[in-house]
Amino acid sequence: MTIINCDMGEGFGLYRIGDDEGLMPLIDVANVACGFHASDFNHMRRTVQLAKQCGVKVGAHPSLPDLQGFGRREMKIGREELVNCMIYQIGALKGFLQAEGMALNHIKPHGSLYGMAARMEDVAHAVADVADIFRVPLYGMAGTLHETVYTARGHAFVSEFYADLDYNDQGGLIITREHAATDPDAAASACLRAMRDGVVRSVGGVDVPVRADAICVHSDTPNAVQVAQAVRAAVTSAA
Amino acid sequence: MTIINCDMGEGFGLYRIGDDEGLMPLIDVANVACGFHASDFNHMRRTVQLAKQCGVKVGAHPSLPDLQGFGRREMKIGREELVNCMIYQIGALKGFLQAEGMALNHIKPHGSLYGMAARMEDVAHAVADVADIFRVPLYGMAGTLHETVYTARGHAFVSEFYADLDYNDQGGLIITREHAATDPDAAASACLRAMRDGVVRSVGGVDVPVRADAICVHSDTPNAVQVAQAVRAAVTSAA
Amino acid sequence: MTIINCDMGEGFGLYRIGDDEGLMPLIDVANVACGFHASDFNHMRRTVQLAKQCGVKVGAHPSLPDLQGFGRREMKIGREELVNCMIYQIGALKGFLQAEGMALNHIKPHGSLYGMAARMEDVAHAVADVADIFRVPLYGMAGTLHETVYTARGHAFVSEFYADLDYNDQGGLIITREHAATDPDAAASACLRAMRDGVVRSVGGVDVPVRADAICVHSDTPNAVQVAQAVRAAVTSAA
Amino acid sequence: MTIINCDMGEGFGLYRIGDDEGLMPLIDVANVACGFHASDFNHMRRTVQLAKQCGVKVGAHPSLPDLQGFGRREMKIGREELVNCMIYQIGALKGFLQAEGMALNHIKPHGSLYGMAARMEDVAHAVADVADIFRVPLYGMAGTLHETVYTARGHAFVSEFYADLDYNDQGGLIITREHAATDPDAAASACLRAMRDGVVRSVGGVDVPVRADAICVHSDTPNAVQVAQAVRAAVTSAA
Repeated sequence: MTIINCDMGEGFGLYRIGDDEGLMPLIDVANVACGFHASDFNHMRRTVQLAKQCGVKVGAHPSLPDLQGFGRREMKIGREELVNCMIYQIGALKGFLQAEGMALNHIKPHGSLYGMAARMEDVAHAVADVADIFRVPLYGMAGTLHETVYTARGHAFVSEFYADLDYNDQGGLIITREHAATDPDAAASACLRAMRDGVVRSVGGVDVPVRADAICVHSDTPNAVQVAQAVRAAVTSAA
Repeated sequence: MTIINCDMGEGFGLYRIGDDEGLMPLIDVANVACGFHASDFNHMRRTVQLAKQCGVKVGAHPSLPDLQGFGRREMKIGREELVNCMIYQIGALKGFLQAEGMALNHIKPHGSLYGMAARMEDVAHAVADVADIFRVPLYGMAGTLHETVYTARGHAFVSEFYADLDYNDQGGLIITREHAATDPDAAASACLRAMRDGVVRSVGGVDVPVRADAICVHSDTPNAVQVAQAVRAAVTSAA
Repeated sequence: MTIINCDMGEGFGLYRIGDDEGLMPLIDVANVACGFHASDFNHMRRTVQLAKQCGVKVGAHPSLPDLQGFGRREMKIGREELVNCMIYQIGALKGFLQAEGMALNHIKPHGSLYGMAARMEDVAHAVADVADIFRVPLYGMAGTLHETVYTARGHAFVSEFYADLDYNDQGGLIITREHAATDPDAAASACLRAMRDGVVRSVGGVDVPVRADAICVHSDTPNAVQVAQAVRAAVTSAA
Repeated sequence: MTIINCDMGEGFGLYRIGDDEGLMPLIDVANVACGFHASDFNHMRRTVQLAKQCGVKVGAHPSLPDLQGFGRREMKIGREELVNCMIYQIGALKGFLQAEGMALNHIKPHGSLYGMAARMEDVAHAVADVADIFRVPLYGMAGTLHETVYTARGHAFVSEFYADLDYNDQGGLIITREHAATDPDAAASACLRAMRDGVVRSVGGVDVPVRADAICVHSDTPNAVQVAQAVRAAVTSAA
């Protein structure tokens, strides 16, 4: 059955983004922020504990070091430095997992780091370097360097379909700094097409190929819980 | 034989404090900064690799979140939050240790966190809470809450003697934000007395009891390498 | 007429706290966050521009350097360092005021810095040191060191009454890290009593003296706009 | 007479870079770090006071928000956000200048922001937008967008020659993350050629045109004081 994953734990201090309590019971796998684009040590603790209560597996969601920009501003940063940057974040998350007796499930780079890994060889290799250390699957987008580099390096690769983002005519994601509300029914229909037919309708009206090993729902859309419920129903009906 | 330990990896970005390359071969155990009072992911990687090359064991040196104040400004922060703060840092360090195939050796809180744990029950218990998770010995000062709380909680406790700091008449350390140069011979003599007779001469001229399971040499004194060499010679002669 | 002031611009990056657009038209004076407990350069720009559009005067709301703790964790930090900390923040705000052709209206320390200045001489003097430089009135609480130190140092002092916080039997504020919803009618009644009779009913049921040169409404209570509307009506009726 | 300027106040917390006390008496103008690539409120205070004591004028040296990378990692950040980022820093510096009764002398973007402004129109315009607010000259490199955009926008432009950096065959600077020692005599000779003949010998052995309204000496080269002394002698002899 297709996995539903969601970026979770993206508050910071008194700030909140996303209804984690509402979303966690609806998903299979949480990509947990590690303090570099969002979150802090208190939010990480709570998020890992919430995932445990809901039987949700926890993966690391490391980012460029850019709290103010929510990890959505590109930075020029070399492969070795990126590797260190991710080790720090993933290690920190593993500390909280150890506190709860849980294991790291996967790694999914966040935001600009994710986008850069899709199209820049050095960045994709940096992600694979990190997976060499932590030995867990990597989440990403089929048809990009995510797939080609990670699999060439021998890592398990889980291809994500984005229920609440638009695709361009080349099959690339259209990433924005803030996420608008998504129509839950449209998201569910898109998921069904992605799962059954392996295509998504682009903003230009073209069907482009996608592969949905996992469906990603964002927590920072205004109606994320409704979207997740619709996607959960779609995944169940497709099973 | 008495262990020599040293706070290491306390640079940040382009900034350097301490001659880590000169000191590492002289010590047994490194307390490695975790990014909250000093260090960052690049320095942590290099410091752990340098320790490995020198056969030095690595402990975590977690701090209050205060890079500007080098962890030497006290903050009012509750037990649960302190626990989370330390888990994050120690987990991050363990990420780098995993990358090098090394194990975490011990935990030694840094600066104000160390001082607070010596005299505030809640803080000492926060440190013990963290040791419950990571299951390694705790470094601290005999005769303080370090010893009483940590041992009552069932944790291995390693009592440190400070070769390069002054003691007051009650046996407490006199902590300053920056460390002045120390006379290497005086440091070595003080170590010998601490190891053989279990006392140190206070700034008030009184002999106060100390216990030197480990001798701590600071890396941010201007002549730290000379002090470490003298202390190494003293430890060797006392063995 | 009594002034209504409000802590504004307390978002950070993608995070939002407070309905600034809803509140700004209801207040006379904005205490604008300067990036140390909340806000960043983008939020500061927008907040100053919004204040200008609404004809609201802008004061600085400097904090201890503690974004994660929202400036509500006390830190041990000396007078000179506090002065520098506030100069930095107020100067930064004045940059945005200069961009809009506005003048700095006042200074009101935030959170723990405010509380510390109420009861610690050194901190109150640090605030007065800063007012020596920027030559604007200081906001604070009558009957505390705010009033005694600031006025002894020759600074204009504006005494605040808090519409949405509880007072203890000694007339002190009960500060919490997060603010709960306040009953708008109760807040309005409390303001009327404070303005007319100079007293507030404490949590212990005692009437304690207060002075309301200005009434402060928080923006981070869940129903802040309703509270502000009720307080605005009360102030208008009392005029 | 040609001005000597230097990037100053680039310590942070306990960290130091550059012998500011040694350099300040040798220069005319200080570009003072504003806390985003280096410095903090304490260092800024001290640096401004030191400049005042030495009769040195103070300009702002704003950076991308990147303390760990010392402002030398490029970031993708829009014009409006860059403007806000610079206003914040320059305003903060003006706070310290106001405390000392000094005026802002000029603006010189730091590191990657400087490099980006030289070749990216939007970034050059962001710098000019900021100069519209603060009304001071802009420092930069002749023959780049610094000159063309700033002067087209009506701003005074001061062309810098770099005494301690290498030039490529196109007249561009070769920027490195850390600065190596420079031969003082070679630096002095290069300055004399730049001032008298308006050329510099590139790393490729070609004479490329430069204009030295001001000569920049870096403070983070290991022998910066010796370089500054040699450059000072050269400027004096050329006067």
